[in-house]
Amino acid sequence: MKTLIASPEIERYIQNLYPVEDPTLSEMGELGEKTNFPIVGPLVGRLLYQLTKLTRAKNVFEMGSGFGYSALWFALALPEDGVIHLTDQSTKNSELAKRFFLQANLAHKARFHVGDSLEILSKMRENFDIIFIDIEKELYPKALDLAKSKVNVGGLLIADNLLWFGQVLEKHGDASTEAIKEFNQKLFNDCNFISTLHPVRDGVGVAYKIA
Amino acid sequence: MKTLIASPEIERYIQNLYPVEDPTLSEMGELGEKTNFPIVGPLVGRLLYQLTKLTRAKNVFEMGSGFGYSALWFALALPEDGVIHLTDQSTKNSELAKRFFLQANLAHKARFHVGDSLEILSKMRENFDIIFIDIEKELYPKALDLAKSKVNVGGLLIADNLLWFGQVLEKHGDASTEAIKEFNQKLFNDCNFISTLHPVRDGVGVAYKIA
Repeated sequence: MKTLIASPEIERYIQNLYPVEDPTLSEMGELGEKTNFPIVGPLVGRLLYQLTKLTRAKNVFEMGSGFGYSALWFALALPEDGVIHLTDQSTKNSELAKRFFLQANLAHKARFHVGDSLEILSKMRENFDIIFIDIEKELYPKALDLAKSKVNVGGLLIADNLLWFGQVLEKHGDASTEAIKEFNQKLFNDCNFISTLHPVRDGVGVAYKIA
Repeated sequence: MKTLIASPEIERYIQNLYPVEDPTLSEMGELGEKTNFPIVGPLVGRLLYQLTKLTRAKNVFEMGSGFGYSALWFALALPEDGVIHLTDQSTKNSELAKRFFLQANLAHKARFHVGDSLEILSKMRENFDIIFIDIEKELYPKALDLAKSKVNVGGLLIADNLLWFGQVLEKHGDASTEAIKEFNQKLFNDCNFISTLHPVRDGVGVAYKIA
């Protein structure tokens, strides 16, 4: 059963407080709505933006980029020589993301990868200041094991959908729900991270790597 | 009219994920419940803890400390030579806070002030890495003006009760509600800060000073 996380009126109030966003982001938001494609939305977007600035991150790896909505928020926050890696299974999504990044004059910060994000991340030689997890939910526990080792100490592991529209409250959920519950147990019991779970939109986990 | 911010079941789920807290914090939580004294609670407490670690803050100024619940979270996160200034109008609250800080072996990080927190802050010679606002709501706009100038660039201004139990949605609220609405408009329109509002408990604002 799906449960409301935060009141929609409250989320609207918060969104109205936030500054007018980049026009490309608004266009992407409209596309997401029109095509019913899940994007993190402006409240989570601004959180990603703030966290990137706050930690002075220089490189970001996204596991699951869709058409690049969250990636654009990261890119806006990165310094001029910062880099964000976008990954997606779909060539069409990747091409769309490229177009949006060009339109927003942020293509110089982006690297586009098509394929399995776990495989792509495992082949990266470098580690990252931020890794963002937003792939198929059944893959979350596996993604966590990999991402943990590929994030720098002092960096952040961020994951979306950790409340899974309230389904994490179910005792015996479907495969996606159980995978997210497992992910949460693993992450919040890991003493190499100081982690919080923000009840914004569908639940955003922010894990700060301390060792 | 009061509106629920986030679902209580969801907040309970998140709290259960978090590590077992310091026993003094639990004792303070019980005292808050028994005496109906408002404290920020473990979800907000852990956010304060994480933000203090993340920004490597060395000094914190609290406007409105009550008996020290949020201050103890800050103190736990501060380095050994870090300092937190607690302020409260009530000598009784300040004495209680002292007792709890001694019990938790954190008194060496604490400075206790009794009196008007605005006056105390305005007399401080130094600036702070974090300023936390949790005083009478009608004083919030005035507190913001002062706190803005007393927080370091790269530091955080954090404020509790920014959703005021949903009353910020009212067109014409009482004096406290209108003061918080004014505070929010001022803070989120200030381009010297990158700000977010977390819909956790009663709404926590986190403003990162960039200039």
